[in-house]
Amino acid sequence: MKVGILMGSKSDLEVVKPCIVTLKKFGVEVDARVISAHRTPDAAHEYVKNAESDGIEVLIGVAGKAAHLAGVMAGYTTLPVIALPVSTKFMGGLDSLLSMVQMPPDVPVACVGVDAGKNAAILAVQMLALAHPELKVALKNFKTEIAQKIARDDAELQGMMDEIK
Amino acid sequence: MKVGILMGSKSDLEVVKPCIVTLKKFGVEVDARVISAHRTPDAAHEYVKNAESDGIEVLIGVAGKAAHLAGVMAGYTTLPVIALPVSTKFMGGLDSLLSMVQMPPDVPVACVGVDAGKNAAILAVQMLALAHPELKVALKNFKTEIAQKIARDDAELQGMMDEIK
Amino acid sequence: MKVGILMGSKSDLEVVKPCIVTLKKFGVEVDARVISAHRTPDAAHEYVKNAESDGIEVLIGVAGKAAHLAGVMAGYTTLPVIALPVSTKFMGGLDSLLSMVQMPPDVPVACVGVDAGKNAAILAVQMLALAHPELKVALKNFKTEIAQKIARDDAELQGMMDEIK
Amino acid sequence: MKVGILMGSKSDLEVVKPCIVTLKKFGVEVDARVISAHRTPDAAHEYVKNAESDGIEVLIGVAGKAAHLAGVMAGYTTLPVIALPVSTKFMGGLDSLLSMVQMPPDVPVACVGVDAGKNAAILAVQMLALAHPELKVALKNFKTEIAQKIARDDAELQGMMDEIK
Amino acid sequence: MKVGILMGSKSDLEVVKPCIVTLKKFGVEVDARVISAHRTPDAAHEYVKNAESDGIEVLIGVAGKAAHLAGVMAGYTTLPVIALPVSTKFMGGLDSLLSMVQMPPDVPVACVGVDAGKNAAILAVQMLALAHPELKVALKNFKTEIAQKIARDDAELQGMMDEIK
Amino acid sequence: MKVGILMGSKSDLEVVKPCIVTLKKFGVEVDARVISAHRTPDAAHEYVKNAESDGIEVLIGVAGKAAHLAGVMAGYTTLPVIALPVSTKFMGGLDSLLSMVQMPPDVPVACVGVDAGKNAAILAVQMLALAHPELKVALKNFKTEIAQKIARDDAELQGMMDEIK
Amino acid sequence: MKVGILMGSKSDLEVVKPCIVTLKKFGVEVDARVISAHRTPDAAHEYVKNAESDGIEVLIGVAGKAAHLAGVMAGYTTLPVIALPVSTKFMGGLDSLLSMVQMPPDVPVACVGVDAGKNAAILAVQMLALAHPELKVALKNFKTEIAQKIARDDAELQGMMDEIK
Amino acid sequence: MKVGILMGSKSDLEVVKPCIVTLKKFGVEVDARVISAHRTPDAAHEYVKNAESDGIEVLIGVAGKAAHLAGVMAGYTTLPVIALPVSTKFMGGLDSLLSMVQMPPDVPVACVGVDAGKNAAILAVQMLALAHPELKVALKNFKTEIAQKIARDDAELQGMMDEIK
Repeated sequence: MKVGILMGSKSDLEVVKPCIVTLKKFGVEVDARVISAHRTPDAAHEYVKNAESDGIEVLIGVAGKAAHLAGVMAGYTTLPVIALPVSTKFMGGLDSLLSMVQMPPDVPVACVGVDAGKNAAILAVQMLALAHPELKVALKNFKTEIAQKIARDDAELQGMMDEIK
Repeated sequence: MKVGILMGSKSDLEVVKPCIVTLKKFGVEVDARVISAHRTPDAAHEYVKNAESDGIEVLIGVAGKAAHLAGVMAGYTTLPVIALPVSTKFMGGLDSLLSMVQMPPDVPVACVGVDAGKNAAILAVQMLALAHPELKVALKNFKTEIAQKIARDDAELQGMMDEIK
Repeated sequence: MKVGILMGSKSDLEVVKPCIVTLKKFGVEVDARVISAHRTPDAAHEYVKNAESDGIEVLIGVAGKAAHLAGVMAGYTTLPVIALPVSTKFMGGLDSLLSMVQMPPDVPVACVGVDAGKNAAILAVQMLALAHPELKVALKNFKTEIAQKIARDDAELQGMMDEIK
Repeated sequence: MKVGILMGSKSDLEVVKPCIVTLKKFGVEVDARVISAHRTPDAAHEYVKNAESDGIEVLIGVAGKAAHLAGVMAGYTTLPVIALPVSTKFMGGLDSLLSMVQMPPDVPVACVGVDAGKNAAILAVQMLALAHPELKVALKNFKTEIAQKIARDDAELQGMMDEIK
Repeated sequence: MKVGILMGSKSDLEVVKPCIVTLKKFGVEVDARVISAHRTPDAAHEYVKNAESDGIEVLIGVAGKAAHLAGVMAGYTTLPVIALPVSTKFMGGLDSLLSMVQMPPDVPVACVGVDAGKNAAILAVQMLALAHPELKVALKNFKTEIAQKIARDDAELQGMMDEIK
Repeated sequence: MKVGILMGSKSDLEVVKPCIVTLKKFGVEVDARVISAHRTPDAAHEYVKNAESDGIEVLIGVAGKAAHLAGVMAGYTTLPVIALPVSTKFMGGLDSLLSMVQMPPDVPVACVGVDAGKNAAILAVQMLALAHPELKVALKNFKTEIAQKIARDDAELQGMMDEIK
Repeated sequence: MKVGILMGSKSDLEVVKPCIVTLKKFGVEVDARVISAHRTPDAAHEYVKNAESDGIEVLIGVAGKAAHLAGVMAGYTTLPVIALPVSTKFMGGLDSLLSMVQMPPDVPVACVGVDAGKNAAILAVQMLALAHPELKVALKNFKTEIAQKIARDDAELQGMMDEIK
Repeated sequence: MKVGILMGSKSDLEVVKPCIVTLKKFGVEVDARVISAHRTPDAAHEYVKNAESDGIEVLIGVAGKAAHLAGVMAGYTTLPVIALPVSTKFMGGLDSLLSMVQMPPDVPVACVGVDAGKNAAILAVQMLALAHPELKVALKNFKTEIAQKIARDDAELQGMMDEIK
């Protein structure tokens, strides 16, 4: 089980880290690369063209501003491409979001929220689980854990309620 | 190979039709339902809880305005959920888009563009292809066809160039 | 007189605190819970289904980003649901606001401004006052107090006017 | 049971009609008036100051563009004020929405979606039901009816599925 | 020559200060008040109704969020009302701006930019100069001064150019 | 009493017409010109430089898109300049509005709402009335008329209320 | 003198036509092609890589929605690339505009306004004129013509002024 | 080879510095000036009118808010004008961007991204290279360098991958 992550700039790493960490926790191999759609377009082309034969099943493209990377990747492959828009100073990243999600007909990407690195990873795992049933169990356990986390937060809140006045 | 499509209102059908048509063309079975996150929440709950055992591998949620349907579906399942926002009179559907794509941590959806019914279908097929290799060939043929369509459009344009003056 | 507050994440507490404080000042009992529409959907369902029989008269849903919580609550009850959108880094919380206020037909929420925790409380008290006349007096006193506060601020400004040059 | 509706311009009537119709269906008396916060401010003042003694329990303010009406009403009363923003040519009514929902501290309104006249009425009924238990039954019946309507739409869709290709 | 400034909250003073300072520099008398359209509506009404007989020739309304103050003032007077929107955390103050500038027909305000306190003052002086010719000379001197300031900045830049590398 | 109106394009005339009509009704002389900040900058320069000596007391600049006209006019004169933004296909004219209202320090314009030609005229009359007391009476009569218009609309609504069901 | 125009879809032709017409009027050879960054990425790559040796001096990329075409072209060449965003139903084309103009560092495009096909052509001619002095004369004549057109529109307006009342 | 840069305010220098530095690195002479479209319009007029005879081949206009400078420059010359919008507190600079990019027909500017000073310089060099072939080599070297920088960043990432967990 392998996911390929391309980020357009090293500065995107802050957003990508939780994505890598989450994928590793699910036991998914990660190939993360700094490859730019505009500055190293040939490298992007080559990476994506070879992704399938390199054992990659899902791709993640991470970029900000006029964020073309995920769309460019989708043009070169039939693997599902997850688009992870990175926030900018401009309207909180509306530029990155629209550049990714509004793909023209025939070439979709699967867009997650702005800076939602962890969600990109979980979505990738959900896709991989279609072919790797062992991940289904892990995902169900994960769903239980996040519910338990909320329940613990709720219990903690109850302990604080009398102090709020 | 089966995809479950929930739309929040019958008026979303115009946007859903190209989605259904495209899935059928790829030989994917489609279960399309009008089920609302707000008006029939129990039906939504029940449908999604049973989806996996009903043989559904990918879910698509279609809604407009405060478009909660896909996110609600994602809360009940570990299957991948594609979110298809429907355009509104309000800023062209920015309300639908943000209500879908900006999911909080741990519960992602895979958002496509506003009114992008066909793209939702292709993305679903790309996901299914992870487990159904026969779809990979179909996707590669599709990619060739859309390139040929662009090439034909280009040829047609060349024939018109002298008339543009 | 009891109000139920659900917040989607413990991080929303900063916004909820003035809401709790204000309700308590009006002598309204507060049941505040961390319950997520996406991470603990069954708890949300159960809480809201039982709210009326638990003596709750008004509900408040607090969430950010794709803020589905208030809408999901409104789907399960006929009690009035106040929606309190939490600001985000994304356009100041436009995502939270639109996800809440733009509810589809038949299932309204009563939306207040972004991060307007105190206003959510006052609105809840105004609703409760319809059935609890003692709150009407308290609300009128409150209106007098805020006018007096403005008058004091004005007096303070007059004392500063000569220094502004 | 009486609701007072103020609209800033006769042109808002298209949006108000479903509001009036829905209130009447629930057996609520409606006093609808064309009164402008800017063109007849004294009339607005007088109407709202007298609302409570005139037997009005909930107020609805309807306006577009720099839509001040609901906020101005809330300044004069402690009754709950529902704000109904009317769409404009400008960003689909974002001006109306923000002018209404973003009320400063201490003076809330209960904002519904843009042009959501029917939802304004249902929210008013939900508020009235706090003091008029007979409306609770009507609201529960209404919730059943809208669920049945969705179920009928779903059944109709099933009959059309084979034709979509 | 007198200008009346109403601000909806003492927190607006930061934005109002350059307005007051600039008016004073032009020798214009300033009456600045904290009066809220929502919290002290009667005081706003009374102030504006009496403005003309109190010798005020131009009014300035300063507010943020759902900024109704300037519009409410314009409803009560035929004096020109300058609207000064205050920035917020929400889209940089788009809520304040739209709540002010998008006034409905028949009741205009003269809107300046977000947080543009100094510009509100200069605009007020330009209006006053229609009736007070001595201000015309002062305005022309001011225009010369701001041009000289730009020229000095330009000269300073020339001295820095060699260091920029 | 004379007002100079510059519009950047003949296509702005639809928006300017109610402005001209309203000014004429108040007995104000109108000099309306098609002069573009970008296509005839020298004519704009000359017109504005001579405006004061030509007896013009207030200027109105009308433009759409990157609407620089009013700002450019304000650079050449100390007369008050009213900015009238014209709607476009782009976000309802947000481009025109922001290009006009967000003037940098020292050079204000008095911005009215998008397409608000009538309001631009009334604001100009309010400014002129500072120096021409006869206009004050006309403005007060106008305020009475618009209130009467609203009252007539209200009466008409009362006659329709029974039919709305 | 040759300009290469790539449009992502044949439906962009309406916007491109005035661009082609204007270039031809200036005597510039036009090579217009339908080539998509996503559907025919290899054709885009090949076209742009060969552009310079094919005698093309300036490139124009035309696209809508997640409009990656111009940015992708800029990645493959050092020729100047003009970006022409096409309007969409979504916020008037804000998606197309931001996807084009917000290019990351090191790889600029020269963006014109939404649907501004004629302006893209004029900008291309201005660039070509740097190397082809004969175009400078044509551009100056063009500037005179557009000024004359405005002057004629102004004269026409003067003839209509008495009828506007 | 000379580029003229006009900035509307000395505070824009932070954004202009990388533009100057980059132009100098390519061996291009830079004439940078603080000249405001609104505060020193005559200086702007004179500078741009003389630009061509002063040996300037490309102009860059830098401004924020209602950023008219580049458009005003384009009105006075047939040289290509690059527009560099400066970010503001208001929606991240959407006001600056729209005021620049949405130029009306016949008078284009070449807009780059918000605060994209370096990109403005590179675009200027690409234009200059049309007439100065020596710059083509420099641009190709630059393209190689930025690709090598990405490759180094990628190598650095590979060294960090094991630590991310």
